[in-house]
Formats: sequence, structure tokens, C-alpha cells
Amino acid sequence: MVGEKEREKAAFEAGIKLGALFHQFIGTPVSFENVEILEKAMESCVKLQPFVADVKVKINREKLKEKLSSFNYTSLTGEMLEAWVKVEVEGEAVSAHLRWDEEKRYPLMSLE
Amino acid sequence: MVGEKEREKAAFEAGIKLGALFHQFIGTPVSFENVEILEKAMESCVKLQPFVADVKVKINREKLKEKLSSFNYTSLTGEMLEAWVKVEVEGEAVSAHLRWDEEKRYPLMSLE
Amino acid sequence: MVGEKEREKAAFEAGIKLGALFHQFIGTPVSFENVEILEKAMESCVKLQPFVADVKVKINREKLKEKLSSFNYTSLTGEMLEAWVKVEVEGEAVSAHLRWDEEKRYPLMSLE
Amino acid sequence: MVGEKEREKAAFEAGIKLGALFHQFIGTPVSFENVEILEKAMESCVKLQPFVADVKVKINREKLKEKLSSFNYTSLTGEMLEAWVKVEVEGEAVSAHLRWDEEKRYPLMSLE
Repeated sequence: MVGEKEREKAAFEAGIKLGALFHQFIGTPVSFENVEILEKAMESCVKLQPFVADVKVKINREKLKEKLSSFNYTSLTGEMLEAWVKVEVEGEAVSAHLRWDEEKRYPLMSLE
Repeated sequence: MVGEKEREKAAFEAGIKLGALFHQFIGTPVSFENVEILEKAMESCVKLQPFVADVKVKINREKLKEKLSSFNYTSLTGEMLEAWVKVEVEGEAVSAHLRWDEEKRYPLMSLE
Repeated sequence: MVGEKEREKAAFEAGIKLGALFHQFIGTPVSFENVEILEKAMESCVKLQPFVADVKVKINREKLKEKLSSFNYTSLTGEMLEAWVKVEVEGEAVSAHLRWDEEKRYPLMSLE
Repeated sequence: MVGEKEREKAAFEAGIKLGALFHQFIGTPVSFENVEILEKAMESCVKLQPFVADVKVKINREKLKEKLSSFNYTSLTGEMLEAWVKVEVEGEAVSAHLRWDEEKRYPLMSLE
């Protein structure tokens, strides 16, 4: 089928990006003071990678607030991380989403 | 096409696993003393993840030897890491491979 | 004062080890199936580093159980990680401890 | 001796910061496009941590250029990372430095 191999490859590449993003940055010190620069830095890292057409990273401010330590920052966790990535391989585009699933208690990554 | 969506999802999941493996463990202290336990631990982490049917992680001993510091260990880098993962989604299996591409100077991840 | 420089250096080295341990491994997939191999691998990584005389890593099984996702594993977080490291610099020994402080909601690292 | 305990604690805290910085960010995708935002993000993460008075992170552009893959970016390694941190504990200040030691082939961290 036309484009099938390309779509599989695009899906593979989208998975790489979300797996990489999560495991590179989980644990990073984060607070209200650096949350924006951290989001931008994370996006900048994804954009460098092959086949990436677009990316958005969002750290949930409510979850961040809940998690702050008495030192007024915390370590980035899956609960507060959301990301969207669009990947294109030879004209075939695939979008994927990382979000915390409260019921599964899991940072769910899915194709859209 | 039958199984197409499942193959795309399997490819996506395979990408997640390799991206996660690389970015979680790059930088880990490694020497000839702990290289086996590190490979096993890395495999154990991939096996926990959804849809994984099989995984193999190999740290290249020649590259490791070349990279050893005067303290007799080094940090794990892409040059010395190789991995294979097989993922199954509703009967559709996809295999993927991470290896250092010397010409591209890049830890290439590909579907097989 | 005799040994003062050595004690400062030992304290510095102990700090390096705990900071490294935390930030290398937070985010790692962990369940009851791989918790022991992960503890051993983490210890093996610390042992490679200069001046380390002893190290113990413990992942809290109760906290692990509480955090399991519906996929039966989770990502390693500060809440479940405890570690002890002993460092020696020219005869001066320093011990340090990483543990979750529930009140501060923080992975506290301290000299002992 | 006056201030000795504080200096030991400051040395310990300085060690934590450099160990954390290295192991959190090694592996991060970096190129000439995002090297500045990455440096700023890394500094912002260190600044959040207790007792930090000052921090500077520098990614070596020459080393970065040498390491670029055919995709025009690379993963951050110890060869290209340099950092300075100043920590203060109850009036006692300690400065520490992370730099690549070419002879030892090692990311050396030292008190200054």
C-alpha cells in the first residue's frame, strides 16, 4: 500500500522522540522560575532530531505547584509533562502525544 | 489494509523503547567490571514496558576499552551501545535496531 | 588543621556520587521484577567512581508498590530511592546519605 | 575549627550540583542552534538548588563542531561540557569546577 512503509517509519520516529524526551529530562530540577526556559530547551532538543516537523512541550503548572518541595522546586516527573510531536517521512505525517493518564498512573504515549 | 494500524502502533512502540533506552542510560558509569550487569539491567528495564516481546542490549567491549579514562571506567556513549527490540501489537510484530553508524557519527535507530 | 583539606575533598566527592546517582537513574523503569538488578547495577556504577569505599542503594518496596501503574511498573522517583556512600580521600573518610524527606517533599542528601 | 563543618557541607553541596548537572544532561541533543538555550536551561536548573550562589555552564563550540553528526547535531558529552558553581553554607563559600581533562580522558570535577 502506498505510503505504508513511510507511515510505519514516521510512527517509529515519533516514538523515538517521545521516549527520548521523557527519559532525557525526567528528574530535571524545575520551578516556576525556570519552567518556561526548560520547556523551550526541551522543544529545541526535539527539533534537532531527524524528521521532526513540529513539537510542543508543556509542563503542567498546577501539578508543578502541587509537587514543589520546601526548597520551592521539584524534579520533573511524568505527572506534569505533556508533549506533542509531528514527524514527516517522505510526505507521510504522523502526530503523537505524551500525557499523564491519571487512571493508568502512567505517562501514556499515543499516535493521533 | 489488515494489520496496518497495528504495525504503525508497533513501530511507534519500538521507537519509544529505543529512544527511552538511549536517553535513560547514556552517561552511566561503565567499565569491564559492571558492563554485564549494566546490560542486564538495561534489558530488564525495556522488558517491563508494554508490548515488548524481546530485547537485547550489547555494549561494545572494544569501544569500551578505547574510551576508558585513567580511572579505568568511562561514561556510556552512543559509540558503544547496540540494542535490538521486538515489539508485538495484536499479532503484528516489529523489530528495531539501535547501532552506532560510524559514517554518520550517529546512534542510528531503524526498523528491520 | 590536619586532614581538613582531605575531608573537604571527601565531602565534595561524596556529593558528586549522590548527585550523579539520583540524576542518572531517576526515570528508569522499575517493578518488582527488576528492582534487585537495578539496585545492583546502580551500586556497580557508583563503585567505579574515584574514592568510593562503599555504597548501598535501596529502592523502597512499599513506595514502589504504591506507585505501580496499570502496566505493573513505574519510573524510579526520589520518593522510593535511598542510598549510602562512603568515600575516602587520603585516609579521611566521609559518609553521606540520600533519603526521601516526606516533610520537605525532597530527596535530601546529607553528610553523616 | 570555626567554619570547618560549614566548609565540608559547602563542598558536599558543590559536589552534588556538579554530579547532578553532568548526569542529568549528558546525552541531550545539542547543535549550534540550541547550544545557548541549553546552557541557560542547565544554569537555571542548578540555580534552583539549595545553597547555590552562582553557576556558569559552557558548552565548548569547537568540540561541538568536531562531534556533529551528519544530521548536524550530536549528544552532549563530557568532552564538551564545562561548568563552575559557587555554593555558600552559613557564610562559608566553596567554588567547584567541572572540565574535561584530555590526558585523563575524564570529566574532572575539583574544588578551587
